Parts: sequence; structure tokens; C-alpha cells
Amino acid sequence: MKILVINGPNLNMLGVREPEIYGSLTLEQIKDELEVYAKDLDSSIELEFFQSNSEGGIVDKIQSAYNVFDGIIINPAAYTHTSVAIADAIASVNIKTVEVHLSNIYSREQFRHSSFIAPKCLGQVAGFSNNGYKMALYGLYCSLK
Amino acid sequence: MKILVINGPNLNMLGVREPEIYGSLTLEQIKDELEVYAKDLDSSIELEFFQSNSEGGIVDKIQSAYNVFDGIIINPAAYTHTSVAIADAIASVNIKTVEVHLSNIYSREQFRHSSFIAPKCLGQVAGFSNNGYKMALYGLYCSLK
Amino acid sequence: MKILVINGPNLNMLGVREPEIYGSLTLEQIKDELEVYAKDLDSSIELEFFQSNSEGGIVDKIQSAYNVFDGIIINPAAYTHTSVAIADAIASVNIKTVEVHLSNIYSREQFRHSSFIAPKCLGQVAGFSNNGYKMALYGLYCSLK
Amino acid sequence: MKILVINGPNLNMLGVREPEIYGSLTLEQIKDELEVYAKDLDSSIELEFFQSNSEGGIVDKIQSAYNVFDGIIINPAAYTHTSVAIADAIASVNIKTVEVHLSNIYSREQFRHSSFIAPKCLGQVAGFSNNGYKMALYGLYCSLK
Amino acid sequence: MKILVINGPNLNMLGVREPEIYGSLTLEQIKDELEVYAKDLDSSIELEFFQSNSEGGIVDKIQSAYNVFDGIIINPAAYTHTSVAIADAIASVNIKTVEVHLSNIYSREQFRHSSFIAPKCLGQVAGFSNNGYKMALYGLYCSLK
Amino acid sequence: MKILVINGPNLNMLGVREPEIYGSLTLEQIKDELEVYAKDLDSSIELEFFQSNSEGGIVDKIQSAYNVFDGIIINPAAYTHTSVAIADAIASVNIKTVEVHLSNIYSREQFRHSSFIAPKCLGQVAGFSNNGYKMALYGLYCSLK
Amino acid sequence: MKILVINGPNLNMLGVREPEIYGSLTLEQIKDELEVYAKDLDSSIELEFFQSNSEGGIVDKIQSAYNVFDGIIINPAAYTHTSVAIADAIASVNIKTVEVHLSNIYSREQFRHSSFIAPKCLGQVAGFSNNGYKMALYGLYCSLK
Amino acid sequence: MKILVINGPNLNMLGVREPEIYGSLTLEQIKDELEVYAKDLDSSIELEFFQSNSEGGIVDKIQSAYNVFDGIIINPAAYTHTSVAIADAIASVNIKTVEVHLSNIYSREQFRHSSFIAPKCLGQVAGFSNNGYKMALYGLYCSLK
Amino acid sequence: MKILVINGPNLNMLGVREPEIYGSLTLEQIKDELEVYAKDLDSSIELEFFQSNSEGGIVDKIQSAYNVFDGIIINPAAYTHTSVAIADAIASVNIKTVEVHLSNIYSREQFRHSSFIAPKCLGQVAGFSNNGYKMALYGLYCSLK
Amino acid sequence: MKILVINGPNLNMLGVREPEIYGSLTLEQIKDELEVYAKDLDSSIELEFFQSNSEGGIVDKIQSAYNVFDGIIINPAAYTHTSVAIADAIASVNIKTVEVHLSNIYSREQFRHSSFIAPKCLGQVAGFSNNGYKMALYGLYCSLK
Amino acid sequence: MKILVINGPNLNMLGVREPEIYGSLTLEQIKDELEVYAKDLDSSIELEFFQSNSEGGIVDKIQSAYNVFDGIIINPAAYTHTSVAIADAIASVNIKTVEVHLSNIYSREQFRHSSFIAPKCLGQVAGFSNNGYKMALYGLYCSLK
Amino acid sequence: MKILVINGPNLNMLGVREPEIYGSLTLEQIKDELEVYAKDLDSSIELEFFQSNSEGGIVDKIQSAYNVFDGIIINPAAYTHTSVAIADAIASVNIKTVEVHLSNIYSREQFRHSSFIAPKCLGQVAGFSNNGYKMALYGLYCSLK
Repeated sequence: MKILVINGPNLNMLGVREPEIYGSLTLEQIKDELEVYAKDLDSSIELEFFQSNSEGGIVDKIQSAYNVFDGIIINPAAYTHTSVAIADAIASVNIKTVEVHLSNIYSREQFRHSSFIAPKCLGQVAGFSNNGYKMALYGLYCSLK
Repeated sequence: MKILVINGPNLNMLGVREPEIYGSLTLEQIKDELEVYAKDLDSSIELEFFQSNSEGGIVDKIQSAYNVFDGIIINPAAYTHTSVAIADAIASVNIKTVEVHLSNIYSREQFRHSSFIAPKCLGQVAGFSNNGYKMALYGLYCSLK
Repeated sequence: MKILVINGPNLNMLGVREPEIYGSLTLEQIKDELEVYAKDLDSSIELEFFQSNSEGGIVDKIQSAYNVFDGIIINPAAYTHTSVAIADAIASVNIKTVEVHLSNIYSREQFRHSSFIAPKCLGQVAGFSNNGYKMALYGLYCSLK
Repeated sequence: MKILVINGPNLNMLGVREPEIYGSLTLEQIKDELEVYAKDLDSSIELEFFQSNSEGGIVDKIQSAYNVFDGIIINPAAYTHTSVAIADAIASVNIKTVEVHLSNIYSREQFRHSSFIAPKCLGQVAGFSNNGYKMALYGLYCSLK
Repeated sequence: MKILVINGPNLNMLGVREPEIYGSLTLEQIKDELEVYAKDLDSSIELEFFQSNSEGGIVDKIQSAYNVFDGIIINPAAYTHTSVAIADAIASVNIKTVEVHLSNIYSREQFRHSSFIAPKCLGQVAGFSNNGYKMALYGLYCSLK
Repeated sequence: MKILVINGPNLNMLGVREPEIYGSLTLEQIKDELEVYAKDLDSSIELEFFQSNSEGGIVDKIQSAYNVFDGIIINPAAYTHTSVAIADAIASVNIKTVEVHLSNIYSREQFRHSSFIAPKCLGQVAGFSNNGYKMALYGLYCSLK
Repeated sequence: MKILVINGPNLNMLGVREPEIYGSLTLEQIKDELEVYAKDLDSSIELEFFQSNSEGGIVDKIQSAYNVFDGIIINPAAYTHTSVAIADAIASVNIKTVEVHLSNIYSREQFRHSSFIAPKCLGQVAGFSNNGYKMALYGLYCSLK
Repeated sequence: MKILVINGPNLNMLGVREPEIYGSLTLEQIKDELEVYAKDLDSSIELEFFQSNSEGGIVDKIQSAYNVFDGIIINPAAYTHTSVAIADAIASVNIKTVEVHLSNIYSREQFRHSSFIAPKCLGQVAGFSNNGYKMALYGLYCSLK
Repeated sequence: MKILVINGPNLNMLGVREPEIYGSLTLEQIKDELEVYAKDLDSSIELEFFQSNSEGGIVDKIQSAYNVFDGIIINPAAYTHTSVAIADAIASVNIKTVEVHLSNIYSREQFRHSSFIAPKCLGQVAGFSNNGYKMALYGLYCSLK
Repeated sequence: MKILVINGPNLNMLGVREPEIYGSLTLEQIKDELEVYAKDLDSSIELEFFQSNSEGGIVDKIQSAYNVFDGIIINPAAYTHTSVAIADAIASVNIKTVEVHLSNIYSREQFRHSSFIAPKCLGQVAGFSNNGYKMALYGLYCSLK
Repeated sequence: MKILVINGPNLNMLGVREPEIYGSLTLEQIKDELEVYAKDLDSSIELEFFQSNSEGGIVDKIQSAYNVFDGIIINPAAYTHTSVAIADAIASVNIKTVEVHLSNIYSREQFRHSSFIAPKCLGQVAGFSNNGYKMALYGLYCSLK
Repeated sequence: MKILVINGPNLNMLGVREPEIYGSLTLEQIKDELEVYAKDLDSSIELEFFQSNSEGGIVDKIQSAYNVFDGIIINPAAYTHTSVAIADAIASVNIKTVEVHLSNIYSREQFRHSSFIAPKCLGQVAGFSNNGYKMALYGLYCSLK
């Protein structure tokens, strides 16, 4: 079972970026924690990590997952609210996808309450900081089994 | 660690209720699965389950959790979109709460895309059927530890 | 053929309640008239009447109709415009349901022009005072035959 | 008691027109059924039927009913949602009018949920296929008696 | 002169509930203070207090006031913004009613700025903490004299 | 100077039509009064009157005015708020046009506050009953001189 | 018959102010023309002219007309779209008032399409440049006779 | 292959009508050009042309195409934005239809950006002046082959 | 304790102004009643009254209260719904302020339901006629003590 | 005559991507068909094809067309609804551009009904699958000749 | 080169007024700083300062600048969001005008994000505290040179 | 003091791009002018210029400024209105940033009136053509000193 973990714009700044909202863990640390969690869950899970600040770069990556990955975990960050292209890419490759957000987007600015991505996904997890990735993996794993 | 699991209106009809949307598991089966998951996660977790079709009944239950429970998992169902009273109750007791939805509410009718409850919660999990409760418990547990 | 007739909040006040809008008949009189009409239409029709001011109480009642009643006539009154829970309950039990309103809700305040309930129903009858219940019964009866 | 039954645009195509929405009866059959129902209800009821695809034609007809007809049953079809002229015509002649729709307009496209006509009518009946005309006649008859 | 004082959902949690918004007095203390104020104002005033978290329960109570109470003071709390049923109940019993809010709802979230209840009331008092009940009583008393 | 006076739907019902809104004069009387006023203003003014309940009929008439009439006075009645076709017809023939309304449309229903026609006209006169036609003629005359 | 003619903000700049929209006549010239027209219409008409850039100044003037003037002609200019105070003043003195605009406000920016003033007036005249004042006087005169 | 070409209101005024928007060709010239194009494309194509300013007239014509024509090309002009009746007629006869506009409706007034007709069509062509009809014919022809 | 009582536009017309909405008391009478009430409440209270129809005049007065008055009672009348300047003035001087309305603004036109002033105030009292000023004084007094 | 054909995000997935919406042809096949059509139309037409998932990449390409290409055919796909940058690029280079969509965007989700690109284009073609490119080329060719 | 510097309502309270938003400088100090800056920029610049809390007063002042001043710098403060009259005054005198705001209005309440004034100005400067006036002067100066 | 000057999409086309809106200077010329201005202001200021048509490229650049630059001047061009990612990037690096626009965006299309970027900036300068960059530098410099 191969899972692609995509992180969108500014998530490479975690640790530096508004820590009162996003926490103090770096993306590298989140990745390491998720690797451990995945191994515990099922040793056959392979994770690949990808981060990009570019909407087109994320679309390219999702397309490249076609026939290669079994599932996608995506934190689209700012593109959640503005990108039809990423939503269309997910629908194009027809791979089960889970949307994750570190912060509770529903207690923030109004424009962060809507997602172009969510309707194309299996589901959404928001507000659990780094643990949200583990929860997303669990949900995706159960659905793919 | 005591966790109260609240299920809102019509969730007692699971198994019967629009199974193409909500799946074929009954609420009892979801409860049993969650008990197993909780035991695995940490044997000190105690779960109490509550279901009501009444907005006021759910408010009463949340209030009764004050100084008794450490966390709440709530699937407010239809009241997600219409109840300020439940949102206020969560804020009143100041207990960490997670919102769960069986279905992906973001791929359904427009009025199901907004939640009065979510801004008062730690986070939200939507779209993972019965596994969503386990994910919610995991997220709540990590936050309470 | 068993038909459940549900009346929502403040309909127990008929006769007293804003008679220039709702007429001077009491709910009891409406019930008696409908019994007569039903007998005339088909003597095998059995009617059960229920009134509640509680949203949850109405949801409970609808659920209890599952596998017991063949059809429902509901005047959701104020809950027409605010209750997703009652709409979900009707969808849950999958019983043919007709929505009735005594007054013509389309010539009143703007917020009375929309209904969460109607999309889950066979149809809607509005504006015919007590005769609306008879019309609803006729429409439901023809559809169930 | 003379009742004018007006059918708006595309209702002459019934039987052919989207039968999954509008049913398989033709307008002629609906008319025949209604004649039978009217005779049963009260033999003194006279029905006149009129169909037009033209907004102006319907306005003309309504005006011609002034001092001639006691009541009107109208299925304004598409003009329900776009015609102020027909609504004004009904108000001009001051004849009790009932609005009928074959389909449940509240479970269809958003633009079919609002009616310029309804506020000028005694009431509205929607969703009962051909039986809706009978229900409308019953409601109108009781109100005119 | 008999006055019914109704408090809506979560007001039984006063003292505990978000004290930076609602103050530190309990509902019991507010009641005691109001009793004193009423006695001072006019010894013939009789107050009855009622609190419920249930929309239907509040509707029931308002109906029971018919022909028994001369006036109502209501703090509908969360139901202010979502309950047509309570508004309809006030209109049904036709008793002079005053709406009270402890906090200044106009300096809080947007959804707290609108009230279904206010148009059916004599007036509204918002933002004066426990003193608002006294002000409401004064306004109601003057109007009933 | 040839002026075409167009009256839209239901204006042929004046005298009968909601006299508390539209007054008790018939369209014939309004016409006679306007003839007198025109003669007084400038004996070279020729008026032609046209009334239709049909949007297409009004469009046809406006088109026929091309190269024949110097100005148009139009009371589009209900089509004011719904007809792009009439607005386009006025722009097509490029004849100076004045919009008239008998009633003050700005103190009536919200949907009567907007006009598709007005932006294509020289100006608008609303609320002066039959005198509005005279005022419109005066304004048009001054502009054409 | 005493008529007060009020001109709002920036109308004292006519002749200078955006002549492609407002024409090249000065306010003085418009006044002179209107005096002539009034004399022709009925020699007993007395006109008083007032211009102010101040919303409060216009309110003061309208109030001072109470029991002194029989009618008001007002071009509220920019305050048309923003002043509830002027609208309330007109309602307070209960004097028949006509609203005039030099330009066709319906072919300009969207915010110029709505008027707080119009619902409190007898009627509105827009788009006829200086002739609009004469038309307004005619309409007011006929209504006051 | 029989194709019906319908032109809506004011298109008979082409050549005269706002030539800076609609060009200087007459409808007759457009027709002649399309005939030539059709012959070139496939000599078996038969075209019939129809123009009407009447919404009802266009509905009548579409209905008459049932079982007679294989495809429809329609320029609904002003009715694009206001006619549910024409949209319903297209759905009723279930004939493949293409919507054409001479001008680019998306660079004009906001109300011209939406179409009731388009969702019922195979597709839409806008902005290519008379060539748009040829393009529409090509698209329709390819789809019908 | 010095309290400034500000009355906005058209309140000097009380007694004359729409008495069915605003009552028959003059502003002078309201002032006299409030003086009496204040004396009873606490003899150390000093009231100063101010009325202006000018938004700028009211802003000037509020500014002049800086370091002079302990509290403000304001009935902003029409400026409630349109004046950011008055709201900013209250925030500038940082004096506790109470908003009063004679009528129940929530049962009137939609544009009277929102207030720019209220969010800057301690609270709002609406609908109690002249008694509202006394209630406002009581609430302000309790808050200042 | 040099024409640049730009395809936006996810169009490289054609054949794989939601074939029930976008058809089963690959982008390569669409290109080949268009080459043939162009040769037939006018052998002097040169086509260059470009596909990118990147908004910035498309902007770069459009800019590079300045002084090099005579026309552009663009299917902006998802960027249709979200990219001001591409619209600005088209305006910047001032090259005649045609917008194409494979599917009928007006019968899909609401957010697909609006286009930032269309107002900057000659016209738009939507809903004709691969034939839409040929139609676009025809329209562009006629306009450039 | 004569420049008029206008400051709107409550700016005379600077230093006292919400210093966390507007800073601690008084308007006098801002004036002094701007005088120094102007002298440095070009010794031929003459500045005149004006402050008023009155919308009408500001309109009067702008009108008086006609043929006297070469440019205007205006901080309309609260009137930014509510005054069409000031915007019209700027357009009337046709003097180049720059809008300044001390605070970043785009990070404050939603109603402060829109300006009636800006569309009539050369440009807008917001968020630089007292330095914004200098920047505005620089921009205006460069444009007038 | 190191300042990064970022120019967004299509600004590399300046000189060519819609010169009636954006002026005839090239980006290179704007840069040269700004260098001169900076040297005059303070010889210790170092400027770095960056232009990109790519949203992701701009995000990358802003991130790279972290701990390297003291301030940012950004003209986000089209991304002003659509990019949450750039706004988040500015918040992530926590560097003082000023938003600049060459044209007065408030006198252009409605969609250009809102900015995702502005709330994260120190301030905004719009409408002063190339001088806006100098003004932005001045404001940023004063704030950083």
C-alpha cells in the first residue's frame, strides 16, 4: 500500500510560521512522527512525502500518482480555498484522497471555511495539529483495506 | 480519562437510515468497535455513550459533563447546521470536544457545509464512516494526554 | 392503510392563536373533520394524531412510525423553516410524507417561504386552512393505493 | 359555480415531456379525470380548460374571467418563477385562485423554489401529479361554498 | 400583576459559563436580585422563574402562561437566533413580552445580531448583565400599568 | 411630432384593478385626459395609443415605431421588472423613450423597485397616477424640441 | 399654495459639476425657469428655494416647513442613497413631497439605483434635467389641488 | 438531417439594432451565409428559419419541432436571461439544441452573463457574430452524425 | 455623576412625528420625566440634554463630553443605521454609552434592524417609548457606580 | 497565420480523466484532429500546441506569444474560474483569443458558470467536446482574415 | 502649488482616540511634520489644513477649493464608507485628490474595506500612520508637476 | 537595510500592457527610478528586484527573504485578488510588507476592489503609477527605522 503525502504552500515554513496557529513542530518532524505511526499501523505501508508552494506543481504530482499510489493525504493549505485545479486533479486520477488541516479552519477567517478540495475527497480532518496526519492515514488505510 | 460520546438526531436509525449515505452499521456496532479501539489505545479510557433526538436533551447532557468528563466526541447530525444552543453548551462547560460526521458533509447539500459547532471544538472529522469516531478519539486522546 | 398525522409547535393553540391568520377552528375540530373525510374516502384508512411543541419529540414520533405507518401528514409549523432534524427523520424512515400548512406561507414573512421539510416529501399543500389536511390525505391516499 | 382551469407553457406536451418528472398522463387525460372528480364533488361545478404557452395569452384569459368565473385553478408552469404579469392579472380580477404544480418544485432546481404567483393565491398544491388538480379543486370549492 | 421570567439554554450555567462574557453571577443570584427590585417597584408584582434548555419546553411554558400571566420577560439565549417556534408561541398567547440579553449581542458574532423573537416583543434590552432583567421588568411594568 | 403611448399588461383593467393602488380612472379616461393635455402643450403633437398584455406584442409595436415615431411613452407595468426584450427593443429602435408608472413603485414590494427598462430611457416618472403620463409627455416634448 | 424646493449637496455647483451628466444650467437658471413655469401653471403658487450641502441642514429645513408649506419638491442628490434622516423628516412633517433627479440615476452606478427618500414621497421624477422640476411641480400641484 | 434555426426578440432588427454591438449584417444575410455553409458541410442538411419576438411563439415553435427536426440552433436573445419556458420547451421535446449569441455576452451587463437555456443545451457559442451560427451548425452536425 | 443625553434627527418633532410609531409625548416631556426619575434614583446625578439633526453636530457634542461627562445616553434615531462617524466618536472619547430607541426597531423596516452604534455601546434598549430613557439611565448608573 | 493552442490543468489527463464528462479522446488525438481541420480550412494556418498545469506557466506562454502569434485558442480548464492572471495576460498581449471548454460548463457545478477569462476574449465555445476546438479555430480564423 | 489637506470626523481627537489604532500623535503634530516635509519637497508648495466633523462642512470646503487649490489630500475617516456627497463634491470640482488613512483599513471591520471616495481619487494610501500624509503629498505633487 | 521588491504577473509586460491603464514606463525604468529615490532617501538601503508570473514562485521568494530582508514591497498584480498563498507567506516570514498598485484598483472592475494580501501588510498604496513604489519605500523605511 503506497500513500503519497502532499503538503501545500508555506507548510515548509512550519516551526517558523505563526506558531500560535500552526504549532512548533517542523514539517520534517511531522513526517518522522507519521512514519512511526504508519509502521505501527501496518508495516506494508509505504509513504512518500512531497511539498510545494506551487499550485501547478501539486497538480503535476497528483497526476504522477496515477497508477502508482493507492491513496493520497493532502494538506492543501492556502490552495484549499482557491484551487479548482487541485480538486480537478484529484478527480482526474481517481485515487482515494484525504484532506488534512493542522488548524481548526472553522474558527479562523470566513474565507478559510470553504474548500474546493473537500467534495472530491473521502473526508476531511481539521484541527488536530500533527496528529491530524495520523488520523488521516488511519481513515485512508481503513478505507483502502 | 473519561470521554463522553454524544450522537445527535436520527443516528439511532443507523443501519436503516439512507444506508447509501450513512453505511449499514448500527449505532450499537459503531459503539462496540469504538470500545475495542479505545481499549487498544489506552486501557484507562472510559467511554460513555449518549444518543438523543432532542436539542435540549443534548444541551442538558453536555452540561452534566461539567467536572465529570475530560473530553467529548459529538456527532451533532442535523443540529450541526442549526443549533447555536449546543455550540454555546460546549463553550459553557469548557471541555475539549471533537465533532464527527459519518458522511463527507462537503459533498452533500449546501446547507450541510456550515457548522455552528465546529468553531467551539478542537477539530472536526468528516467522511470516514464509523472509523471517524476512532480518529476523533485518537485526536482527542493525544490532545488530553 | 395507517396514516400518522403530526402537528408541530403552537398548533395546539389553534382557535386562540392569531385567528386572523390561522382561523378559528381548534385542532380537535380539525381532527374530527379529517376523521369524517377519511371514512368517506376509504373506510380502511386509520388515522393517528400527534401534536408536539418539541423538535426532538417530532423526530422521535417519525422514527416510531417506521414499519408501522404507511404514510405521514405533517404540519411542521415553525419547524418547517428551521429543522434539518425533522427532514432527516422523514428521509430516515422512508415513509411517504405530505407537508401541510394552514396559511399561505408564501404571502407571509420572507423566512416562511423556505422549507427544509418539503424536499423530502411527496408534496406540499399550503393555504387552505383545515381543508388542507383533507387535500393532503387525498393526495397521500392516491399515491399509496 | 364556474371554475377556469389554466395550464401554462409546455403542459400541452405532457406524456411526452420528461415523463420521469411529470408522469405519463396527457393533459387531456388529466382534464378527463378532473371532470369526473368535479361531477362527484358537486354536479353544479362547471369547468373550462385553457392551455397556452404565451404569458400574454394567459393574462388575457385571466382578465376575460372577470365577472364570469367564480374561481381559477392555475398551473403556471415555467411562468411561476418569472411572471409578474400573471400575478398582477390575478390580483386585478380579484377571483379566488389556486396554484398547482405536478412535480414537487421544492426538490428541483433552486430557481423553481420561488413563485411570483403564490402570494396572490388562496394557496398552493405541489407534487401530487394529476391528483393535485383534484386537490386544488376541492380546496377552491370549499373556500367558495 | 403576574410576570413569568423565562431563561433559555445554558443560562443555568451562569457563573460557570464564559464569565468574561456573561459575568460571574449565577442565575439564582440574578433571580434574587430581581425579586428585590420587583418588591421595591410594586409589591403586587408576582414573579415566576423558569429555565429550560429545550426549545419545545419553552414553547410549552409560554403556552401555559395564556390567561395566567400578565407579562413575560424572556432571555431566549441561543434560541434568539434560531427559533421561529418561540416567536410563534409569543404571538399565539398574545401576552406582552420583553426580550433580555445579558451581553451586548451586537458586539459579538454576526449570527447573534438577528433575533426571530424581537419582532414579536414589546422591546429588547441587551448588554446590561443582570441589571437588564430589572430594566426589562420596569419597561414591562410601565406598559402593563 | 408623433408620440407612441404604450401600456403594458393589466393596464386595460384600470378602474377594476386594485383601485386603492391604481386609482379609479379607466385607461380610456387617461387617454382622453392626455389628448387634451397634448393639444394644450403643442397642437402639432400626434398621439397613438397601444395596449397589450403580451411582451412580444409590445416588442413588435416598439419595432414598428422605427422611423415612424419621434418618441415613446411606455408604462411597461409588470414587464418593467422582468423584460430584457422590451429594453432591448427600445435600444434597437433608438427612439427617445420615457417610462411611466401610475403608482410609486418604490413604496411597494421589493421586486417592483428595479427596472430593466429605465436604463434605456430618457427618464422615469413614478407615482403620480394619470398625471404621470402628462408629465412624461412634457419631459419628452422638451427633449425632442 | 406654498411649495418648498430643496436642493441637496453639490447642486450649487451646477454648471461647473460634471456637465456631461448634469447639464450646463446653473441652479439659479433652473430656479428662474421654474418660477416662470409656476406662474403659468397657477399664479397663486409661491415657491421658496433652499440649497444645502448638509444633511442636518436639510432636515432642519424640512421640519421648518411644518404647518407652513403645502408641498415639497426635493432633489436630495447624494443623500438620496444614504440618508434615513431626510426620509424620516419627510415622514415627520407629513407634507406631500416629490423627489427629483436631474440625471437618469438608473443608468449610472449601482449605488445610485436605490433611494431611502422615494418610499416616503408621492412620487419620483428622474432624468429630465431642469425640466424634471417643472414636471415635479405639475405632479405635486395636481395632487394638492 | 433537418435543423431548425430559431432567432429570438429584436434579432429581426439586425443591421439597424446597435450595430456597434451586433454588427451590420441583417438576419436575412446571416441566413443566406448559413445556407451556403450548410450546403458545403453536407448537402443533406435542410435548414428552416424562424424568428419571433414572442416567448410563447418560440415555445410553440420548439414544440412543433418534436418528431420533425433532428436539431435546433437557437439564439434566444433577451429571453436567454429571463425565460424558463423556453428552457423547459427544449427539455420537453428532447432535441439536441445549440445556443448561439452574436455578441460576447460575458463582456456586457452582469444580467447577460447567466442563461436559463444553456443547461438544457448541448453547448453554447458566444461572441463570433454571424460566424457563430456556422460554428453552432458544425457542432450540432458532428454530434448528430 | 454627569450624564449627557443626546437625541438625534427628528426627535425634536416628537408629538408631531408619526405618533402611531413614536407616541404622543414631546421631547420636552420625556426630558422632564427623566429628570424626575434621575432624582429618585440618585440625587447626585446631573443630566444635560442635547438634540441635533446634524451628524457632525452630534459628533462635536460627543467629543466635547470627553473628560466632562461620566456617561452618555444616545438615541441616534436615523443615524443609528448610517453613521460610522458617531460610532467612531463614542469610541474616541471612551465614555460608557447606552443606545435607546423609542420604537421597537426590530419590528420595522429591514434597514432599521442594524446599528453602527450598538457595538460601541454598553448596551441597547429598544421599544419602550419614553420609559426606555429611564431604563437606559438605570443600566448606565449601575454600570458607573 | 500562426495560432497558439493552450490547454490548461488536467487536460493532459484526457482519456483518463472523468471520461463521462470529458470524453475518451486523449489530448494528442484532439491535437491531431485539429491539425487536419486546420489544413482543410486554410493550408497557411500554423498551429502550436502547449499544455501546462501551472497558472504562471500559462501566463508566461501567453506573454511569449506577443508579436509572434496572430491568435490564441485557450481551454483554461480549472483556471477559467480562478485566474485573474491569465485574463490579464490576454489583455496584456492584445492578441485575439477564443475560450474553449470540452464540457457544457453551464450544466455543471455553480462555480463553473463564471469565467474571468471570457470578458477578455473574442468569444467562448462550450460543450462540444473535441469539436469545440475546431469551432474555435473557425471563429478565430474568420475574425483574423 | 496650493494643496488643501482635509481631515474628517474624529481626527481632531487624535492622540486621545484609540491610540492603539491611530497612534499617539495629535493632528497638530501631523500637520507640523507635513509642513516640514512639504518645504523639503518643494518650497513653492502651500498647504492649508481643515478639519470638520460635518459631512456638509467637508463638502462646502471642497467646493470652495474650486479654482483656488491645485490638489486635495483628504482623510475622510468615517465618511469614507458612508458619504456619496463628499465623493460627488470631489467629482464636481475636478481637482486631483488623494485619499489617506492612518490605519490599515483592510485589517479592520468589514465595513471599513469599501470607500465611496476612492473611485473619484487619483489614488489611496492606507496604513502608514502620519507618514501616509507625506506619501500622499509626494504622489499628488508628482502628478501635478 | 535590505528591501525586497516583488512584482507579480504581467508586470514584466509594462510598457506594452494596456498603457492607458498602466502607463508607458517599463518595469526596468520603474526599477531605475526607485534605485535613485532609495539612494536619495538613505544610502544604506539595498534593493533587490524580483518578478514572476507564478504564484508559487512568489511564495518561494517571500520565504527565501526570511532572516535576509528587512522589508518587502510587493505589487501582487492579479494575485492580489485570488492568492491566499501569498498572504500566508507574508504572515509566515513576519517581515514588514507594503502592497503597491500602479492603477487605482478602486475605480476598476469590482473584483479588483478586494485584496487577500492587504490585511497582512503594513499598508497599501494604489493609483500613483511608478511613484507608488517610491511612496511605498518611504512608508516602509519610516516604519523600519
